[in-house]
Amino acid sequence: MTTVHRVHNFAAGPAVLPMPVLEEIQRDLIALPGIGMSILEISHRSKTFESILKQADADIRTLGNVPSNYQVLFLQGGASTQFSMVPMNLLAAGSTADYIDTGSWAEKAIKEAKKVGAVSVAATTKADNYARIPAQSELKLTPGAAYVHITSNNTIEGTEWKTLPDVGGAPLVNDTSSDMFSRPIDVARHALIYAGAQKNMGPAGVTVVIIRDDMLQRSAEKKPTLPTMLNYAVHAENTSLYNTPPAFAVYALGLVMKWLIAQGGLAAIVKVNERKAAKLYAEIDRSGFYRGTAHKESRSLMNVTFRLATEELESAFVKEATAAGLDGLKGHRAVGGMRASIYNAFPEAGVDALVSFMKEFERKRG
Amino acid sequence: MTTVHRVHNFAAGPAVLPMPVLEEIQRDLIALPGIGMSILEISHRSKTFESILKQADADIRTLGNVPSNYQVLFLQGGASTQFSMVPMNLLAAGSTADYIDTGSWAEKAIKEAKKVGAVSVAATTKADNYARIPAQSELKLTPGAAYVHITSNNTIEGTEWKTLPDVGGAPLVNDTSSDMFSRPIDVARHALIYAGAQKNMGPAGVTVVIIRDDMLQRSAEKKPTLPTMLNYAVHAENTSLYNTPPAFAVYALGLVMKWLIAQGGLAAIVKVNERKAAKLYAEIDRSGFYRGTAHKESRSLMNVTFRLATEELESAFVKEATAAGLDGLKGHRAVGGMRASIYNAFPEAGVDALVSFMKEFERKRG
Repeated sequence: MTTVHRVHNFAAGPAVLPMPVLEEIQRDLIALPGIGMSILEISHRSKTFESILKQADADIRTLGNVPSNYQVLFLQGGASTQFSMVPMNLLAAGSTADYIDTGSWAEKAIKEAKKVGAVSVAATTKADNYARIPAQSELKLTPGAAYVHITSNNTIEGTEWKTLPDVGGAPLVNDTSSDMFSRPIDVARHALIYAGAQKNMGPAGVTVVIIRDDMLQRSAEKKPTLPTMLNYAVHAENTSLYNTPPAFAVYALGLVMKWLIAQGGLAAIVKVNERKAAKLYAEIDRSGFYRGTAHKESRSLMNVTFRLATEELESAFVKEATAAGLDGLKGHRAVGGMRASIYNAFPEAGVDALVSFMKEFERKRG
Repeated sequence: MTTVHRVHNFAAGPAVLPMPVLEEIQRDLIALPGIGMSILEISHRSKTFESILKQADADIRTLGNVPSNYQVLFLQGGASTQFSMVPMNLLAAGSTADYIDTGSWAEKAIKEAKKVGAVSVAATTKADNYARIPAQSELKLTPGAAYVHITSNNTIEGTEWKTLPDVGGAPLVNDTSSDMFSRPIDVARHALIYAGAQKNMGPAGVTVVIIRDDMLQRSAEKKPTLPTMLNYAVHAENTSLYNTPPAFAVYALGLVMKWLIAQGGLAAIVKVNERKAAKLYAEIDRSGFYRGTAHKESRSLMNVTFRLATEELESAFVKEATAAGLDGLKGHRAVGGMRASIYNAFPEAGVDALVSFMKEFERKRG
């Protein structure tokens, strides 16, 4: 293996992957060991691919402690497609779905659901620029709601739910795209969990859905009318092989799951993630030169958002950081400022490098 | 680069990729030259990815001689998702779409379209086991049809349209999943062309759509009601970056397009493909021991389907071929027999090896 130059990649996703995973993909790229074909070429109906898919499923079940009455699906189209699939499968005529609006992605989910059926926004923190997660007391839940939809981590605004809301007996649907498997998750409290893979789970191109059997039943009833590719029950019955899956992305995701298990699973990785985030938030809070945008009790472990006194300073910060090998720190165009995305695979050394850079930048410009 | 064992991969898709493409992917897997990040990690909003996407678009336009009033889209979900997207975007209430039924995939397209609106089957060769493409005289076209849908190559049945049908002024929609860019295609005679990439264009995980501007206009009118991710106009307006695209699959597809241009483009590759197919069909026709399943005038250049006298012989053929390093020759479970898929990247040496094996098998068992 030749040594290659690597920068610290703070991008919000697609995002940094574990080096051992990249190295294994590289090593086996021309031909999987003993198979004589690349993972890019192999039939999805082959025993080899079937076993890759089964292992990824098993490793997700191990990591998430997924109960046996849930199915794991590997789909395409990202969370944006789930914004439509969730109501198309789970929201029957005459029912209402509750959505909790905590940021830009939740807004998009709401917009798509409204095309399908009746939606009630059970709470929103839009008036606070989405800088916080609503308190339990703020939730106005619809009795008998078809489901309650939340966004566990808000990538753009840098906030996260620290604990799941109490939604009574309603099915809880959770968009976990930017924190899935970065911390323990109580799957059994959910009816459906979905996540685009490209933050903590793998490369772009595969979407993981974990769905409870009673939700699959709702989905099965929609078979005569729903597009087949948008029907969860069809994908579950065909173990994600109804049509050609994104085979390479599933393979790469499987390697990331193996890596995560080797790190000690979710209980171990959350400790690393808490330590990394704590270092950055401590630096943000130290002198007042930097200003965190999220309320402290809602701060995300994954996406650390902060600002400087002026947009000119912010531009200079991003430009000089990039030149120093700290890439992807520009905040989302919708909110401005800076954002350091520090997913599972982001090395602690990169966080240390950013903290040093922040101190030095303050010394020069403060 | 260490030498690795490679078999001849006759799989119907995902399928063999050009070795220079696999080697370039492997070489740059840890970090794209001068970028310091893997293609698997890079932000889809970065200049680097933007330029990869633009180049793939430009190379597709060069290869297909795509007129400027067509847009090229990179989507997810395979042809199976297109089966729904086409009618959802192009079939208005009160209109009828014509479908020509030439095989299993056409049947699936028809099934999905019927969920959306009025469908007329303008011709079918089901009574002939889909062993042929219908003649122009068999087509019962609906005056003023919303569009006419065909399947240019029938992967399972081993047939292909040699020339496009005359559909009068109706918009022609073509599922080209298994022959796209294996031979010249007159884009200007189409309203919409789609193809899952995993036969001739790249790995699984990306779907190419080439759509004429007037069809995008129909699509734009459906924005208020259609799921955003299923709306062609949204993807066109966002140059396939409405949400996170399958970045790696787009990159790999781009490398295949570059390779194809280096081979001399479609006029050159079709000559190679004709030569490869001719060798196999000549062997099939030589003695009567093998029997081609497609009518001669409808034979596919991509998927060569043939049978033996008994299923026992066929099992033995597939088993012994696999042992000889000729992989993936079992026919689709829907039709049985054998199928040799010999896409652009399938080496002529592999065809020669199969012909030799066929002769030897006949000598031993004939």
